[in-house]
Amino acid sequence: MMKNYLDDSLALHTDLYQINMMETYWEDGIHNRKAVFEVYFRKMPFGNGFAVFAGLERVIDFLQNLKFSADDIAYLRDELGYQDDFIEYLKNICFTGTVRSMAEGEIVFGNEPLMRIESTLAEAQLIETAILNIVNYQTLIATKAARIKYIIGQETAMEFGTRRAQEMDAAIWGTRAAYIGGFSATSNVRAGKLFGIPVSGTHAHSMIQAYIDEYTAFHKYARRHKDCVFLVDTYDTLRSGVPNAIRVAKELGDKINFIGIRLDSGDLAYLSKEARRMLDAAGFPQAKIVASNDLDELTILNLKAQGAKIDVWGIGTKLITGYDQPALGAVYKLVSIEDEDGNMVDTIKISGNPEKVSTPGLKRVYRIINLANQKSEGDYITLDHENPNEEKELHMFHPVHTYISKTVTNFAAKDLHHDVFAAGDLVYKLPLLKEIQSYCLHNLNYLWDEYKRSLNPAEYPVDLSPECWENKRRNIETVQEKVKWQLKNSEH
Amino acid sequence: MMKNYLDDSLALHTDLYQINMMETYWEDGIHNRKAVFEVYFRKMPFGNGFAVFAGLERVIDFLQNLKFSADDIAYLRDELGYQDDFIEYLKNICFTGTVRSMAEGEIVFGNEPLMRIESTLAEAQLIETAILNIVNYQTLIATKAARIKYIIGQETAMEFGTRRAQEMDAAIWGTRAAYIGGFSATSNVRAGKLFGIPVSGTHAHSMIQAYIDEYTAFHKYARRHKDCVFLVDTYDTLRSGVPNAIRVAKELGDKINFIGIRLDSGDLAYLSKEARRMLDAAGFPQAKIVASNDLDELTILNLKAQGAKIDVWGIGTKLITGYDQPALGAVYKLVSIEDEDGNMVDTIKISGNPEKVSTPGLKRVYRIINLANQKSEGDYITLDHENPNEEKELHMFHPVHTYISKTVTNFAAKDLHHDVFAAGDLVYKLPLLKEIQSYCLHNLNYLWDEYKRSLNPAEYPVDLSPECWENKRRNIETVQEKVKWQLKNSEH
Repeated sequence: MMKNYLDDSLALHTDLYQINMMETYWEDGIHNRKAVFEVYFRKMPFGNGFAVFAGLERVIDFLQNLKFSADDIAYLRDELGYQDDFIEYLKNICFTGTVRSMAEGEIVFGNEPLMRIESTLAEAQLIETAILNIVNYQTLIATKAARIKYIIGQETAMEFGTRRAQEMDAAIWGTRAAYIGGFSATSNVRAGKLFGIPVSGTHAHSMIQAYIDEYTAFHKYARRHKDCVFLVDTYDTLRSGVPNAIRVAKELGDKINFIGIRLDSGDLAYLSKEARRMLDAAGFPQAKIVASNDLDELTILNLKAQGAKIDVWGIGTKLITGYDQPALGAVYKLVSIEDEDGNMVDTIKISGNPEKVSTPGLKRVYRIINLANQKSEGDYITLDHENPNEEKELHMFHPVHTYISKTVTNFAAKDLHHDVFAAGDLVYKLPLLKEIQSYCLHNLNYLWDEYKRSLNPAEYPVDLSPECWENKRRNIETVQEKVKWQLKNSEH
Repeated sequence: MMKNYLDDSLALHTDLYQINMMETYWEDGIHNRKAVFEVYFRKMPFGNGFAVFAGLERVIDFLQNLKFSADDIAYLRDELGYQDDFIEYLKNICFTGTVRSMAEGEIVFGNEPLMRIESTLAEAQLIETAILNIVNYQTLIATKAARIKYIIGQETAMEFGTRRAQEMDAAIWGTRAAYIGGFSATSNVRAGKLFGIPVSGTHAHSMIQAYIDEYTAFHKYARRHKDCVFLVDTYDTLRSGVPNAIRVAKELGDKINFIGIRLDSGDLAYLSKEARRMLDAAGFPQAKIVASNDLDELTILNLKAQGAKIDVWGIGTKLITGYDQPALGAVYKLVSIEDEDGNMVDTIKISGNPEKVSTPGLKRVYRIINLANQKSEGDYITLDHENPNEEKELHMFHPVHTYISKTVTNFAAKDLHHDVFAAGDLVYKLPLLKEIQSYCLHNLNYLWDEYKRSLNPAEYPVDLSPECWENKRRNIETVQEKVKWQLKNSEH
């Protein structure tokens, strides 16, 4: 049975190894050394050509409230056995670091730093797990939503997935991410309350079953609700549902605002075309057809290709879980750390898998906008001190296949990171959710359509500046030398 | 930006249409009619031969605390425009119903009622979304965990997925579900605190990078931590990581408890066999090898087939998200409702998809245990008043392909539902989490191995009693007559 802790906090929402590492640093006296971690993912989710960053607002909330509760401390000491001296240190932990981050709604790509956290080594370690947990999920769903919305086009997209979401937080933060990616409304009332997202919904099959027949049920619903969308597939869509909806709409006339009907099963292409014909013939050409039932970008594309007459798309399971790839693999890697003399030293993680080698050093991400056509030439990752806006021309090259290269002139380089925390203080003005959605839509304009195609999109360039690239190469060499030296040494 | 509501509740964690239906019932004066809903899923998740029920504890917590906060009420009135008379009614809503449910850890199957909710029509409607949200996710993950654990066998399984979980609730409730399905520990400290799950973890790559070299880092870790598992793949597993781990273990001898090493990348079959050889040669045959890196039941089966020397399996992404099927499709269907004369009337939902037709009436689920071998003959769904224990022999038949049938004698019929709420009062003693895990493992013994195979398991029988089957058939006929009659009627 769940233990009742009165003052639970989210500070323990971390992996145990983070606390063990904090203890190691603390014991060794290096816990307050400055460390820089960067958050990035490697592979584009869903094979999409772009991703949409989300999660920053919850990360900010988490960092601002980072503090172990008395119960957290009691658990760490009494149940996990951490000793008193270290426990005393933990009691005063809060976030004192500096954060630069992409804005929510930013269009982002693999292998570029989404967030950069500079803090004490111990603090930076503690917060890794929660940051990844938040950013991975919310970015995944914002991306899926934008991908679906791109196929839907100008029609309306609504998020209906709470019952299939992976528990409660996913339902509300997922639907917020969907809104960022271009969705218009949610069925989740609490998300509406917390985030100001428009909420949408009429009635379910159970209401039809609760009455003697469908016709009566529609009438009863219309007594209290002026705006009516009737769900028509409880018994038989074309023989019962649509005729009853039309009959009730005709009988009530101006007393209601007959918005339309909703289809939730069966062949949506056939049913929507037939229903459209019936509605038009009955004098309701303005009535909308809402459709739902395990929809995703592929089914929508196919339904559209068959001329389905659907005005509003309700998307549930496939969106809220990111069904075809339910996890984004963002990681949090140490890129630089203070040494015993107080100098910052770049660090690298080597791997047998070449794509898993991290890129050392504090970095910035610039979007290179071609001023002639206002389209992006790609993203350009530099070391912290570089500023491509001071260059006349940029040599952009693929960081692995370096022969793929181009020289760009007449550009503006937009720094994609924002200052969010400075020495523990929030210095970022959180935008309204509506503004975040607009920002996302606006930024998609900088991308050629070839990057937005659902299937096999072109690969957007994410390049390293020559200095950043050279720094990485040098770091790899240094580590390899060290390993060789150690090996030789231990053989003696 | 997120609005700051001081007294947020979970009562609004519902779909808007539930509240619209409540309003319809309330306006019509039928909101207090008794209604019975059942929760069930149709398709077995992951193509598994069995599922593991989970989520009841959180459902109980949700129902016990069901009450709109002042802020919820203000939102419904001021933002969504519900009128004062209905708002007054909502202010006093709490859960007054009766619930029967499977116990957590029960082995369950498609098309059988997992929970049965008898309440007022309005209340039962309000709680649908949250119940499905909770049960769908937790049952999904408990099932995935049991499926993975079945392949792992006697070795240890640990849940490491927080950073890839779909937001915070999924991380903690998912790891609790994994424990129910047979996992031994979690990396999530808060889940350890809240649920009493053993927590596990040592250090990450970043700790190695934080020191001048791997050897130093291992030494530093061992200064404070007696139990040591060294992560050996930061630079080069076999040339650097394993030799350094061995060197430190030898140097420190009895000062530490050298538990073993952890592999987190590369070819785990090859690396584990080589590492095993090196550890044995160095005099550490008892040292364990922990492995992680995108593992699931299929990769584990393959690694085992290749003779990988892995003692402890750390499972993250693929478990915590139910990666290959990240949603369970449980639904909540009205099976019976009070009519205007106070009689209960069975209801049905018809669909063009035959598998989507609901089974009307209040039901019970019995597991039919063959007393000769203590193996289950299948599950037997009856109407509420039936008791198969009073029968000498049971005629069990497939509810669709009725020719598949058998007659069972010498059996015990175990009622799988427990009384959880009676008229709003909790009447169920919540078991300890450890007991739930044991219950799950114990109940798996009743299943033939053929139902537990990962790939193409045999189909476990879930049959309807003749009376229940006949009742369904009759209800389908009645609805079809009604639709025909209506159609004829509206043509005049």
